[in-house]
Amino acid sequence: MPDPDLSAVKAALTAQRIETPSWGYGNSGTRFKVFAQPGVPRTPEEKLDDAARVHEHTGVAPTVALHIPWDRVEDYGALAAYAQERGLRLGTVNANVFQDDDYKLGSVTHPDASVRRKALSHLLECVDIMDATGSRDLKLWFADGTNYPGQDDIRARQDRLAEVLSEVYARLGDGQRMLLEYKLFEPSFYTTDVPDWGTAYAHCLRLGPKAQVVVDTGHHAPGTNIEFIVALLLREGKLGGFDFNSRFYADDDLMAGAADPFQLFRIMYEVVRGDGLSEAAGIAFMLDQCHNIEPKIPAIIRSVMNVQEATAKALLVDREALAEAQRSGDVLGANAVLMDAYDTDVRPLLAQVREESGRDPDPVAAYRRSGWAEKITEGRKGGQQAGWGA
Amino acid sequence: MPDPDLSAVKAALTAQRIETPSWGYGNSGTRFKVFAQPGVPRTPEEKLDDAARVHEHTGVAPTVALHIPWDRVEDYGALAAYAQERGLRLGTVNANVFQDDDYKLGSVTHPDASVRRKALSHLLECVDIMDATGSRDLKLWFADGTNYPGQDDIRARQDRLAEVLSEVYARLGDGQRMLLEYKLFEPSFYTTDVPDWGTAYAHCLRLGPKAQVVVDTGHHAPGTNIEFIVALLLREGKLGGFDFNSRFYADDDLMAGAADPFQLFRIMYEVVRGDGLSEAAGIAFMLDQCHNIEPKIPAIIRSVMNVQEATAKALLVDREALAEAQRSGDVLGANAVLMDAYDTDVRPLLAQVREESGRDPDPVAAYRRSGWAEKITEGRKGGQQAGWGA
Amino acid sequence: MPDPDLSAVKAALTAQRIETPSWGYGNSGTRFKVFAQPGVPRTPEEKLDDAARVHEHTGVAPTVALHIPWDRVEDYGALAAYAQERGLRLGTVNANVFQDDDYKLGSVTHPDASVRRKALSHLLECVDIMDATGSRDLKLWFADGTNYPGQDDIRARQDRLAEVLSEVYARLGDGQRMLLEYKLFEPSFYTTDVPDWGTAYAHCLRLGPKAQVVVDTGHHAPGTNIEFIVALLLREGKLGGFDFNSRFYADDDLMAGAADPFQLFRIMYEVVRGDGLSEAAGIAFMLDQCHNIEPKIPAIIRSVMNVQEATAKALLVDREALAEAQRSGDVLGANAVLMDAYDTDVRPLLAQVREESGRDPDPVAAYRRSGWAEKITEGRKGGQQAGWGA
Amino acid sequence: MPDPDLSAVKAALTAQRIETPSWGYGNSGTRFKVFAQPGVPRTPEEKLDDAARVHEHTGVAPTVALHIPWDRVEDYGALAAYAQERGLRLGTVNANVFQDDDYKLGSVTHPDASVRRKALSHLLECVDIMDATGSRDLKLWFADGTNYPGQDDIRARQDRLAEVLSEVYARLGDGQRMLLEYKLFEPSFYTTDVPDWGTAYAHCLRLGPKAQVVVDTGHHAPGTNIEFIVALLLREGKLGGFDFNSRFYADDDLMAGAADPFQLFRIMYEVVRGDGLSEAAGIAFMLDQCHNIEPKIPAIIRSVMNVQEATAKALLVDREALAEAQRSGDVLGANAVLMDAYDTDVRPLLAQVREESGRDPDPVAAYRRSGWAEKITEGRKGGQQAGWGA
Repeated sequence: MPDPDLSAVKAALTAQRIETPSWGYGNSGTRFKVFAQPGVPRTPEEKLDDAARVHEHTGVAPTVALHIPWDRVEDYGALAAYAQERGLRLGTVNANVFQDDDYKLGSVTHPDASVRRKALSHLLECVDIMDATGSRDLKLWFADGTNYPGQDDIRARQDRLAEVLSEVYARLGDGQRMLLEYKLFEPSFYTTDVPDWGTAYAHCLRLGPKAQVVVDTGHHAPGTNIEFIVALLLREGKLGGFDFNSRFYADDDLMAGAADPFQLFRIMYEVVRGDGLSEAAGIAFMLDQCHNIEPKIPAIIRSVMNVQEATAKALLVDREALAEAQRSGDVLGANAVLMDAYDTDVRPLLAQVREESGRDPDPVAAYRRSGWAEKITEGRKGGQQAGWGA
Repeated sequence: MPDPDLSAVKAALTAQRIETPSWGYGNSGTRFKVFAQPGVPRTPEEKLDDAARVHEHTGVAPTVALHIPWDRVEDYGALAAYAQERGLRLGTVNANVFQDDDYKLGSVTHPDASVRRKALSHLLECVDIMDATGSRDLKLWFADGTNYPGQDDIRARQDRLAEVLSEVYARLGDGQRMLLEYKLFEPSFYTTDVPDWGTAYAHCLRLGPKAQVVVDTGHHAPGTNIEFIVALLLREGKLGGFDFNSRFYADDDLMAGAADPFQLFRIMYEVVRGDGLSEAAGIAFMLDQCHNIEPKIPAIIRSVMNVQEATAKALLVDREALAEAQRSGDVLGANAVLMDAYDTDVRPLLAQVREESGRDPDPVAAYRRSGWAEKITEGRKGGQQAGWGA
Repeated sequence: MPDPDLSAVKAALTAQRIETPSWGYGNSGTRFKVFAQPGVPRTPEEKLDDAARVHEHTGVAPTVALHIPWDRVEDYGALAAYAQERGLRLGTVNANVFQDDDYKLGSVTHPDASVRRKALSHLLECVDIMDATGSRDLKLWFADGTNYPGQDDIRARQDRLAEVLSEVYARLGDGQRMLLEYKLFEPSFYTTDVPDWGTAYAHCLRLGPKAQVVVDTGHHAPGTNIEFIVALLLREGKLGGFDFNSRFYADDDLMAGAADPFQLFRIMYEVVRGDGLSEAAGIAFMLDQCHNIEPKIPAIIRSVMNVQEATAKALLVDREALAEAQRSGDVLGANAVLMDAYDTDVRPLLAQVREESGRDPDPVAAYRRSGWAEKITEGRKGGQQAGWGA
Repeated sequence: MPDPDLSAVKAALTAQRIETPSWGYGNSGTRFKVFAQPGVPRTPEEKLDDAARVHEHTGVAPTVALHIPWDRVEDYGALAAYAQERGLRLGTVNANVFQDDDYKLGSVTHPDASVRRKALSHLLECVDIMDATGSRDLKLWFADGTNYPGQDDIRARQDRLAEVLSEVYARLGDGQRMLLEYKLFEPSFYTTDVPDWGTAYAHCLRLGPKAQVVVDTGHHAPGTNIEFIVALLLREGKLGGFDFNSRFYADDDLMAGAADPFQLFRIMYEVVRGDGLSEAAGIAFMLDQCHNIEPKIPAIIRSVMNVQEATAKALLVDREALAEAQRSGDVLGANAVLMDAYDTDVRPLLAQVREESGRDPDPVAAYRRSGWAEKITEGRKGGQQAGWGA
C-alpha cells in the first residue's frame, strides 16, 4: 500500500481549485425535454449564491465560470463585488455564438462575412467583460460545422476560423488567455470545425502562447485515450484547462467521474506527473456539466468531490516504485503500483483534509443539513428560471 | 452490368410506399438551439398539406405518421377525411410518454405505479385514436432509462415494461399491431430500457404475433451491422418496420441515405432478399427524421428519393449470379455482383418510373417550380409553429 | 460506509469459483507478433501444473477449461486424473472450428455441406471428450462470418447454423450444456454469424434449456452496456456463463478488470442482484484471455483477484438502502449507495478471507516467493511451447 | 448531372499513380489463422512479377512499396533493375521495428536505450536502402505503446520517440522524406505512442519540411471524419501520403473502398479540392492492405480501381456550382451537387480512359483471361511463401 509523504498530499489537496459553471446551477435537458427543478436560480446573482454553498462545503471551488449572454448583467464590477462578498471570484468567461438565428450555418466560420463579424464582435465583448471581471480566461467553444457532405468548404472554414481567432487573440490583454475547446460532434453532425485536440493545437500554436487547448472530457470519439492527450499537451506546454464531466455514450453531462472513475484517475495522474497541479502550470480545472434529472447543487458538490478523490489517488501513486518498475520492464509490477493507489479508499484522507480546514468531513451531508435546498425551493418562486436559453 | 427483368423492378418501385412523419414538417433542433424556419405548419392539417406535396411529387408517400399529443385534434375522423381529400391516409400512431414532468425518471418503467398508469393510459388512448383513424400500427419508443449506475433497478424496470406492454397488447384490435422501437441511448445516458434489437425481440416474442420490432437506422452502437439485424428479424418473422434516417455520429436526424448510402443499399438488399417489399410482409417503411437546418419539404422529398434509389439498386442485384458466386466460394465475384448493382446510376430508371406514372422525373425540381415554398412562407405567418413541444 | 452481514459476504467469496483457460498459460500474441516467454508449458499436463499454482494461491480456481485440439490427448480420463492429483478438475470444453484450411470461409455456416459436416463432427467429438472428462459445458464460439458485402447469404448462414446447433444439442447428455458465445467481429470483418447477445439468445431459445448464452466481456460494440445484458439474460434464465477479460479498444485479451474496474463491478452487481452467484444458478465464471507481454501465471492470478474484488464490492452494496433510494426516486442517493461499495477498499477483506482459508493474504507475492517461475524457466527448455497453433 | 471538362478529368485519371505494397502479394491473416493461398510469391522478385500484372492491367500502379526485412535482398540495385525490366520502380521503404523479440515493450520508445539504438540502426539501414533503390519516402509506423495503465511513462516515451526521429531525420538526403503514420491501437492495447494525426503532426512540425504525416484510412477511432483530417493536413502542407484500405470495425485490411465507398469519395474530393493530385503536391497514394481470404492479385486490381472510381467521381464534382451553393447557404443544393457526382456511374469513363491508353477496359476480366493465376499456382510450388513473418 502506498506510503508517500502524506503532508505533501494533503497540502496539494488543500491547494486544489475547481471552478464550477454558472449554467450548471440552471435548468438543462436534452432535445426531448427540459425538466424544470424547484429552487433554480433566476439571476446570475442567485447562481452565485448557490455556488457559494458549493464552496462553503468543499472549500475548493471559489471561482465561478460565466456564460455570456446567459449571465449578462449591466454592471460586471458589481457582479464581481457580489461574488467577493460571498467568498467567490468570477472565473472564466464563456462565449456563446450558437444561439442566435444568424448562426444556423455557423458563426466564426459562417460563409457570410457579416455573420462572422457579428460573432467576432461578441467575442471581443467577452474580452471587455473579462477586463471588468478580472477574469483570466476566455473559453471558446464553437458549435460551427456542417450537417451534410458538401454543405460548406472544410478548408475555407478553417481559414475563416483562423482569421477570427487571430483578431480575438490580438485583443487579449496581459495575463489574459484564450482557451480553445474541441468537440467531436454536436450540434454539427457531419463536420465540426474544431473536432479534436490536433485542430485546437494547430490553431493555438499559430496564435501564440496566450492560446491554449482545453480538454473537455466528454468530447472525444469512442476509444480515445484522453490521458494520453493530457500528457502530450502538457509536454507541449499547451494544456490550458479542463472541462470535467462524464458520459457513457455521446453526451457530456453526467457528473465528473460518474461513468468511469478509473479514467478520471488516469487523467489526474498525468496532470500530477506533468506538474500540472501547481499554480505555475496555470491549468484551469473546471466543471462543465449540467444536471438534467438530479438536484443541481449536491450534484456539483459530488462532482467536485469526485475530482478531489481522483486527485488524491493520483497523488498517492508511489512514483519512485513506478519509475523503477517501468525502467525494468516489469509490466505487472508497474501496473500494480498504479492500481495500488487507485484501489485505496481516499475518502478518509479527504475527510481529514476537510476537517483540518474547519469544514464538515462530508460535504453532501452538510449541504443536506444546511436547509439551503428547502430555502431556495421556498424563496425562488415566480420569475424566469435560468436555463440554456435555447 | 446487371440486366434483370426491368419491368418487375419498375413494378416494385411503383408499388413501394414510404411513410413520412408529421413531425418532420415541423421545427426541430438540438439541445443547443431550435432554428425556426419560415412557412412551417401550425396545425396537423397544415402538416398534411405539406405531406401532400411530397406525395404529389414522389408518388410513393401516401401515408403520414401521427405523433400524439403533437397531432392531437378533436375529431380524428375529420382529420382522416382531410387527409383523404388530399390523396393521403393517416398512418402509424406514435405515442409520446417522455414530455410530461411526471416522466423525468421514466414512464412505463417508472418506479412509481401511478406514473406507469398514466403512461399506460396514454398508450391506450393512442389505440383509441388508431380505431378512429384506421391506422394499423402503434409505434412505441420509450425514453425510459437511467443516467447513473444504481439509479434504478435494471431488472425491475424490465418487469414493469413487460406488464405495461401486455396490457397495451391486449387492447389491440384485429389488424392492429404494436411496433416496438429500440435505441441505444438518449435521452437516457446510462441504461435505456429497450436499448437493442434483442431486448425488443424478447419482449415481442412473449407478447405474440401482433408485436413486432421496428428498426430505426440511427439507433445503434458504432459498428453495428444493421443489415444483419434486418436479415435476422425477417427470418424470425419479427420485422415490423423501419424508421429511416441517417447519422455520422450519435444523432439520428440526417436525411435517410445521406451519411452512408452504401449501408442503406445493403439494408434494402436484405429486405428484397427476405421478400420484405411485398405487401404480404407487412413491413412499414417510414422516415423518422427532422430537418434542423435544411428546408423541410425538399429534404423529405430527397429522403424519399434516397430510399427509392437504394431500393432500385437492391432490386437490380443479379441474384442468380450472386447465389452462384456465393455457392462456389468466389469472394471477389460475389462482392462484385453486389457492387455492380450499387455502382449503377439508377436515377434514369427512377425518372422513367415517375414519368410512366405521369409525374415529373425530378421531384425536387418540380417542387421548387411549384411555388409551394413561397406560398407557405407568405401564408403561414403568425400562429404557433409546430415543433417537438419540448 | 456499507455495513452488511460480513459473514455472508465472506461465505460468498469463499464459495466463489473462477475457471482459468488452458490457453492462457500458453504463448499468444497479435497478428503482428507472438512473443514467446520462458517457461511456457509444452503439454496439457504442464498447463495443469501452472493452473494448480493459481488455485494454490487463490483458492478459487479449481477448474481449467480445455481447448480442443490444442489440448487433445490420447486419454482424457488420464488427464482428468492428472488434474485431480493436483487439486483441479477439467472444466468447460472449448471447440475450435477456425484453424483448419477448410474453414477459410466458415465452419458450421460454410456454404459447402461437407465442410459443415466436418465441423459438426468436431463438435460431436468435443461432447465425447466431455463424457470422458466429466465436463458440464461445451463452449461454442464461431469465427464464422464474411469479410465483404455479398460474400455469402446472411440468412442462409443462419439456417445452416441452426441446423448444426440442433444436431449438437441433440447429442448433449443429461447435465451437459451448450454455451453459445457471441462476438461483434474478428476474425470476420463484415458479418459475424453470432455477433450479439440477441442472436445467441434467439438460437438458444429455440434449442431448449440446455442451450445458454455466454457473455464475453470483450465482445461488444463500443458503448454497449454489458451489465444490462447480464441483467436481461438472468431475467430470461438464459445466462450460462462469462468469459472475463478486458479491453480499451477492440481486442479482448487484457486482464479482467484491468481496463474498466468499475464496469466489472457493475456486472458483478447484476450477478449478485440476480442470484447468479449461487450454485443453483449454474453460471460458469471463466477467464478467457491471453497474456501477450506480461508473465502468464501472475497475470492470471491478478485477473482472478480482480474478479474477486469486483465481487466483494458487489456483495457489499447495501441493497436495502439502494432499493429505498430507488423507490423514492433519489437519483443521487441511489447512485451514492452503489458508489459507496465501489469506493471501498476490499483488499483487506479478501486478505482476511484468504487467511481464514489458510492461504497467504497476498497471492501474487506468495507466487513470486514460491520459486515456480524460476523452476519452469529452468525446467521447460526444449520442446514445443504451447500456443494458439495459428 | 455534372458536365465538367472531361478531357481534364481524363488527363488527371491517366496521370494518377497508386503504389501497391509488396506485402499485399504475400500471405496474411488474423491472430487466429493465416490461410495460405496457392501461387503466393516466395521472393521479392516474385512479388514484383505480380505487381507488374497489376500495373499491366490498370496502368496506374508502376511503383511497389518495400517492407524491410520482409523484402531484404543482397543487392537492392539489382532488385531495382529487376523492377525496371518489368516496367516498375521501387517505391516507399517501410521499416519494421516490431517483430524482433527485443521489441516486446517497444522499439524507438523502449525504456532500454540499447533497444532504441537497435531500432534506430534499422531505421538508418532503411535510409541506406532508399539510397540504393532511389526511393523517395521512408514510411514509419511504430507498434510502440503499452497494454496496461502504468506500464510505462507516456511522456517519457514521447521524448524517446522525438529523439530517435530527429536522428533519422538528420540522415535523410536531399529529396528524401519521412512519412510518419499514426494508428489508434493494435498491437498496443492501452496507449499507442503515435495514436492520432495530431501526435504525428506535432512531431513532423518540429522535425521540419521533410517530415510529413501519412493517413492510413483504417487507423482511426470510430466516427472520426477522415476527410476533415485530409483537408487540414493539406492546408498545413503536412500531408505526405495515404495508406488506403478499408474496414467496418477495427481492422484495416479490407480492399480500399469496400466498406464505405462514399467515404473514399469524400476523401478524394478533399484531395482534389486541395490540389493534392498534382505531382507538385508530392502526395504518395499507396495501398496498405492484405488479402486474407480473397485472391491477392485481383483484390489489389479491384482496390486500385476503387481508388480510381472515387477519384473520377471527385473530379466530376461541379466545383463552381458547389461554391455558389455553399456561398448562398443552400444546404440541400450544395449537398446535391456533391451527390450528383457520387451517384454518377464512372465505370464507362474509366473504361474509356483505359482503352485510350491501349489497355483492356476491364482489368479484372483481363487478368482472369491472362492465365497468370494458373501459371503461378502451377509454377510456385515448394519454397517458403512470403508472409508477414510474424
